[in-house]
Amino acid sequence: MTERLVLHEYAASGNCYKVRLTAALIGVHLERREYDITKGETRTPEFLKTVNANGRIPVLQVDHRCISESNAACYYIADGSILIPTERFDHADMLRWMFWEQYNHEPNIATLRFWMREVGVDSLTEVQRLQMPLKRQAGEAALKLMEEHLKGREWFTGTTMSLADICLFAYTHVASEADFQLPRYPHVAQWIERVKGQPRYLPLNA
Amino acid sequence: MTERLVLHEYAASGNCYKVRLTAALIGVHLERREYDITKGETRTPEFLKTVNANGRIPVLQVDHRCISESNAACYYIADGSILIPTERFDHADMLRWMFWEQYNHEPNIATLRFWMREVGVDSLTEVQRLQMPLKRQAGEAALKLMEEHLKGREWFTGTTMSLADICLFAYTHVASEADFQLPRYPHVAQWIERVKGQPRYLPLNA
Repeated sequence: MTERLVLHEYAASGNCYKVRLTAALIGVHLERREYDITKGETRTPEFLKTVNANGRIPVLQVDHRCISESNAACYYIADGSILIPTERFDHADMLRWMFWEQYNHEPNIATLRFWMREVGVDSLTEVQRLQMPLKRQAGEAALKLMEEHLKGREWFTGTTMSLADICLFAYTHVASEADFQLPRYPHVAQWIERVKGQPRYLPLNA
Repeated sequence: MTERLVLHEYAASGNCYKVRLTAALIGVHLERREYDITKGETRTPEFLKTVNANGRIPVLQVDHRCISESNAACYYIADGSILIPTERFDHADMLRWMFWEQYNHEPNIATLRFWMREVGVDSLTEVQRLQMPLKRQAGEAALKLMEEHLKGREWFTGTTMSLADICLFAYTHVASEADFQLPRYPHVAQWIERVKGQPRYLPLNA
């Protein structure tokens, strides 16, 4: 790749970590630029105008153009690599897990982690506090679905690691930070170790 | 395509409509099988075992295998067609809008429509009722972001219609059923007419 890739990010975010992990696993270099989301640094007029009108990170800058949404940024980086199956069904099945992650997994497990770790339970609004048990229940359901799927399988799609695994790994492997008990999901726990054992694996806090 | 494609669906769902619209626009035949989600027909042991362990529709059955998640099903059907850009950046940018739709648009606009039209405001739980103003605000923000993006553009990605447009169209064109005022977003309203004017366009209730 001859283009310049800059990751606009908040490093503790699992969504940003996905993009770094994808790049690391296939040996792609990313420049990194950090924003403190707890101080509104992604909501400034400058950020909204030049990086992402949606006011969120991660954003992958490719030369002078930007791609927001973590899973789309991962796809751009991995396009043409071994992390994206070329067979039509497997490719759609990989996307299935990536959409599922953003709809069923991230809004529950990642949001609880953010509320508990970054915001603090005492600082939540009433409606956030009321949502906590619902997100807990939906997060457990997501982990249970992953556990069932991984019985007899090594990877989420096909027979090799794909972006589906990377995107699901990001918040799953730190789910204990939102008080989810991973030992209750032994196939998920084994799959986490499988990802960590990959050559060029990069930890979240690297 | 020589394979048999069966759409497991609840026809009034915009997520199911996306899949039908994609197929219609490129002339692909789908068999249809209807489930009443308000009667729990997608949560039966049979459905969970053979169609989707996540208990949701739409599911695209390809011969004897299934793809859940509406946007992944659309991708499978449209793979290799004019609805999916081949250029690397445009392709990732299309996926960006499809992930954004599932994270920022559907949980607000589609959920409000479902609560108001199918569940009924009087039947909502307390936490659902408390979420309504937040979903209203986030839904307006989503429409505003679409409005800004469409200024000076005909389509969301590149210069032709893509899956990004179809996936965003599904719930946007019926947003008035959740009391969103589309005339306040004139570029969005024009884009809706542009989609409706496509050859082989299929209405939601067809």
